[in-house]
Amino acid sequence: MYSFKNDYSEGAHPRILNALIETNMEQLEGYGEDPYCIKAAQILKERIKRQDIDIHFFPGGTQTNLTAISAFLRPHEAAIAANTGHILVHETGAIEATGHKVISIEVNDGKLKPEHVQSALEAHTDEHMVKPKLVYISNPTEIGSIYSKSELEHLSSFCREKNLYLYVDGARLGSALRSEENDMELSDLGRFVDAFYIGGTKSGALIGEALVICGDSLKEDFRFHIKQKGAMLAKGRLLGIQFLELFRDDLYFELADHANGMARLLKNGITEAGYSFLTNSPSNQIFPILPNTLIERLLEKYAFYVWQKIDEENSAVRLVTSWATREEMVLEFILDLKALA
Amino acid sequence: MYSFKNDYSEGAHPRILNALIETNMEQLEGYGEDPYCIKAAQILKERIKRQDIDIHFFPGGTQTNLTAISAFLRPHEAAIAANTGHILVHETGAIEATGHKVISIEVNDGKLKPEHVQSALEAHTDEHMVKPKLVYISNPTEIGSIYSKSELEHLSSFCREKNLYLYVDGARLGSALRSEENDMELSDLGRFVDAFYIGGTKSGALIGEALVICGDSLKEDFRFHIKQKGAMLAKGRLLGIQFLELFRDDLYFELADHANGMARLLKNGITEAGYSFLTNSPSNQIFPILPNTLIERLLEKYAFYVWQKIDEENSAVRLVTSWATREEMVLEFILDLKALA
Amino acid sequence: MYSFKNDYSEGAHPRILNALIETNMEQLEGYGEDPYCIKAAQILKERIKRQDIDIHFFPGGTQTNLTAISAFLRPHEAAIAANTGHILVHETGAIEATGHKVISIEVNDGKLKPEHVQSALEAHTDEHMVKPKLVYISNPTEIGSIYSKSELEHLSSFCREKNLYLYVDGARLGSALRSEENDMELSDLGRFVDAFYIGGTKSGALIGEALVICGDSLKEDFRFHIKQKGAMLAKGRLLGIQFLELFRDDLYFELADHANGMARLLKNGITEAGYSFLTNSPSNQIFPILPNTLIERLLEKYAFYVWQKIDEENSAVRLVTSWATREEMVLEFILDLKALA
Amino acid sequence: MYSFKNDYSEGAHPRILNALIETNMEQLEGYGEDPYCIKAAQILKERIKRQDIDIHFFPGGTQTNLTAISAFLRPHEAAIAANTGHILVHETGAIEATGHKVISIEVNDGKLKPEHVQSALEAHTDEHMVKPKLVYISNPTEIGSIYSKSELEHLSSFCREKNLYLYVDGARLGSALRSEENDMELSDLGRFVDAFYIGGTKSGALIGEALVICGDSLKEDFRFHIKQKGAMLAKGRLLGIQFLELFRDDLYFELADHANGMARLLKNGITEAGYSFLTNSPSNQIFPILPNTLIERLLEKYAFYVWQKIDEENSAVRLVTSWATREEMVLEFILDLKALA
Repeated sequence: MYSFKNDYSEGAHPRILNALIETNMEQLEGYGEDPYCIKAAQILKERIKRQDIDIHFFPGGTQTNLTAISAFLRPHEAAIAANTGHILVHETGAIEATGHKVISIEVNDGKLKPEHVQSALEAHTDEHMVKPKLVYISNPTEIGSIYSKSELEHLSSFCREKNLYLYVDGARLGSALRSEENDMELSDLGRFVDAFYIGGTKSGALIGEALVICGDSLKEDFRFHIKQKGAMLAKGRLLGIQFLELFRDDLYFELADHANGMARLLKNGITEAGYSFLTNSPSNQIFPILPNTLIERLLEKYAFYVWQKIDEENSAVRLVTSWATREEMVLEFILDLKALA
Repeated sequence: MYSFKNDYSEGAHPRILNALIETNMEQLEGYGEDPYCIKAAQILKERIKRQDIDIHFFPGGTQTNLTAISAFLRPHEAAIAANTGHILVHETGAIEATGHKVISIEVNDGKLKPEHVQSALEAHTDEHMVKPKLVYISNPTEIGSIYSKSELEHLSSFCREKNLYLYVDGARLGSALRSEENDMELSDLGRFVDAFYIGGTKSGALIGEALVICGDSLKEDFRFHIKQKGAMLAKGRLLGIQFLELFRDDLYFELADHANGMARLLKNGITEAGYSFLTNSPSNQIFPILPNTLIERLLEKYAFYVWQKIDEENSAVRLVTSWATREEMVLEFILDLKALA
Repeated sequence: MYSFKNDYSEGAHPRILNALIETNMEQLEGYGEDPYCIKAAQILKERIKRQDIDIHFFPGGTQTNLTAISAFLRPHEAAIAANTGHILVHETGAIEATGHKVISIEVNDGKLKPEHVQSALEAHTDEHMVKPKLVYISNPTEIGSIYSKSELEHLSSFCREKNLYLYVDGARLGSALRSEENDMELSDLGRFVDAFYIGGTKSGALIGEALVICGDSLKEDFRFHIKQKGAMLAKGRLLGIQFLELFRDDLYFELADHANGMARLLKNGITEAGYSFLTNSPSNQIFPILPNTLIERLLEKYAFYVWQKIDEENSAVRLVTSWATREEMVLEFILDLKALA
Repeated sequence: MYSFKNDYSEGAHPRILNALIETNMEQLEGYGEDPYCIKAAQILKERIKRQDIDIHFFPGGTQTNLTAISAFLRPHEAAIAANTGHILVHETGAIEATGHKVISIEVNDGKLKPEHVQSALEAHTDEHMVKPKLVYISNPTEIGSIYSKSELEHLSSFCREKNLYLYVDGARLGSALRSEENDMELSDLGRFVDAFYIGGTKSGALIGEALVICGDSLKEDFRFHIKQKGAMLAKGRLLGIQFLELFRDDLYFELADHANGMARLLKNGITEAGYSFLTNSPSNQIFPILPNTLIERLLEKYAFYVWQKIDEENSAVRLVTSWATREEMVLEFILDLKALA
């Protein structure tokens, strides 16, 4: 059984493990104040081309989202998210648990545009309703689509004009930035958004995400929030060492290239076999529409999620690739798919 | 500079790292549902000698405490803790951030006794005040003392009689259970308390704590809370693999023995040198009272916390040992201390 | 300028004020434990035909909703509401501020049916999502429609089968129960739902709502929650005296009859003038669709809300009547409307 | 049975009821935007001698405290209160329920001084602890003492220097400001503190408190918070009409004079009878120490709280007077006390 269920099925890239082993017996400061965390933050600042940003490391994505959003918002303020947004559906109400409503906007492609945000603003007119204050987007989105630079720029301009924070969930940011359709760099995020996180867990790290805070007003006392939400690891080194390894050269992006390449290979094979896709996904998650009978047969040998019923005969499935996906298994999958079709 | 500042200065015991490497490329289920988490939970149940308990793994201690306590309590219910309790002073109001008051009880030795809890009950008489519902203790306490079996048993009986939950923060539980003064086993906790956690981070793991829920009414839907608080790691394997390694034989306890042995060695040396201690601590944290001039000299070569001013000339310091503390450095510290005295 | 903006434009029914005056100098217990609160609760129990229910008085509706719902739910549990639900849109995120998500269900007529709730259950399958636990409905709904007895009974059966609480916001309950289309009694609510509130503020009281808790498991320690949320008035008598006056005979229902009668009069006149309505509303809020030019002229003399744009030429407006609405002003409104048409 | 239990045993001063009756059938805007609320706010601004302050009316004191404090603080910030502070002990954890710790400072006389606050600052040094940000005091305090102008001024200077908000719970503010020992005016509060509330419920109103926000940074969007916490009454007029009546001339202060006068009369009589007091209380709550046997006899005819055991034979009791306390009953109490002694 080979799994295309997600991009966190394996452990960490070997270089990550090596870095942990090599530094293992060094006595270091706790709570993210060790030299590795400091160095990793410094390298990220260079990559993002801004020295005036703050970097904080977190164990996981939900924790990053809930800590950041609850720190940024006052009690009456709300986040806006696409109806597919991770915070809206797959984090067990983590944002609401900190006291904030998440306003859902129905979209087709997982992406928020200024007109969507505008509609939320128009629907919230006075103190009898929450005040929309933070726009949450994911890049790539939860259905594999990515934002173009001009899309992000327009959304950013709109948010600044309306005095809204723009926050990017980058759980799979590497995959977006290395997509063939992408025209953005890490530094563009630093210019366009108020805060974003660079996902490690789904990009080759053992665990860990790096939150980048660009907006000055959002930085103050942020470590209090990390501690209060339980995200400040005593052995904070674990996160710094990994991000240093991922970003001291291009490892992070090379791993994203591999994941994207494997997804492309799958996509091409599935297209050749005559099938179409639920969404246009240029990142490491693809959603082919397959006959239910074929899906059943494939599930005997491969693990993946059946995503959505299309009609009586067909369903969309989700196939996810990662830094660890083996090319021979992708090829075998395509052969099997063609053979079984 | 050698550090006695805490027990999380180094990484993980080499066997932990080996276990991570060996399993690294296995494709596993996410979110703590992999075979390693399941196996580790099973082994802990055997150690605790109860099959009807639930085990959940967390990245860190504050997160364990806040997730468990907020899951267990209704909105108007409060926790009771000794004034030295970690949740009361060193978790940035994490419990209050989930909506619950922590009632502080002044004690001398870090330990809560039935009469302390009784005083809190008597002070909270009606609906104009919070309702005390959970008794939080640490073993060992934050100042190194430990509970005897009869102390825990009495406290447990009292709590059951008063319909209070008893919760044990076991961040350093190994050190308590392997202390020379200890007369308790892991299985006694399973009998006497409603929930407790077995600390990994400070006991040789890279990160991780194992929450044990004994009380039936506290188990329902618990995974929802883990997810909502951001504590459910996508690569949950990271925690299961470590706890399996720590408990598949006696590694966890051997590491505690080493930490305790090093603390004892320090204690004996300091006693020989003619100094006394702030508290009776039979665990891996000791609090010698030293002249300020001596402290200054020692700080040139060793890292540790100055804990508390005693008088104009003397202060108590905190020395912490761990699984990784090197015996030669302990001996050198004692020699230096005697030479500098 | 005469106002049809809402049903809380005037003070209280004169009998309410008289009751306050007559009891004014009596020295009474505070916090809702005075004889008037106790007597009012007793009378409500008789009206609802259940002695085993708990009655609590609140100053306002939002406070009733937020106190009850946050007391009933555990942290990971969510409420389900129609997209028009008051808690969803017009309470500034009060429920989310207590930590709970409100799941929105799109409906046309303001009413939730079992199939709507079923769709919410199907969309929330595991611990990565909130757990739907409480179904919130309003009767009458926010757009004037009412539930029939069989609709409520079916919804109730469905909720019991699925282990969901059913909660009714009765801000205008009198108007629903005295609607010509209604076939329910107060005692039916007591049989079919877990908790509901009987609105006073919009039904002739100065302020006040009466929360009725039917479900045994929801009753425990409820006064702690009232106090914690700031809803326990020192002069709780203010609420008890009013509800006693409203329910010691049929005043509450007579006032609802008047409000409904005035709405019907308006509806008939508007229908005669040839206009239609946005919704079928048999209660004290009606939503006629009028030409914008007519609306502008009417607004010179009458206050009311323009509710929704229908097309370029027409809009729906909201007209609300109450216990205090003067018949001559209704007749004058209709004459004006016909004259201006 | 005549009650000295509290100052909310009766309804409202007759002038308040008259004002409600006279305005009863006027159609007014809801939610505190009617002319009476606006006029009452304007008059309070004149009394406080500042036009740049914001005034908001609330139904009750706990709700005022919880709404204001949770609006003012960020999630990691805490309030500091004397151990007798109402928010600390008698509001069922209302502040904690909004996510904030209340730091308790042990004092003898109910009053916080700069050195007390300084001790709290020194105990909270970094992000592992909450950040003290708001100093909560009551005037008069919960044990009847009052702040002098210079005490308030010093505390205010200290708070400004340390960047702390100073907040005054004025549930019985009238009694403090009309105490014989007082040397402060309402306008001094406007100069020295960031926010305070003027209690109505315990000073002759039916219900209601007026929150005064002086600090500019605390004003923004405040009505959202009022609504979210359920404190925005649909018939907000109820609060404005009362405060207008209390402050359009000197009624508020005359009622405080009466309450204080009755307390003084009691105090003098009890002193003459040879008894002493638990605290120096120049306001409308006094705490005489009486023999238990005498207390028992008095309780047959009068209602009051036994406050605290002094020794085996004696206890302190609490006697509270109000705008409604009848002089003949005070005199009778004194006669009885002397006769029974």
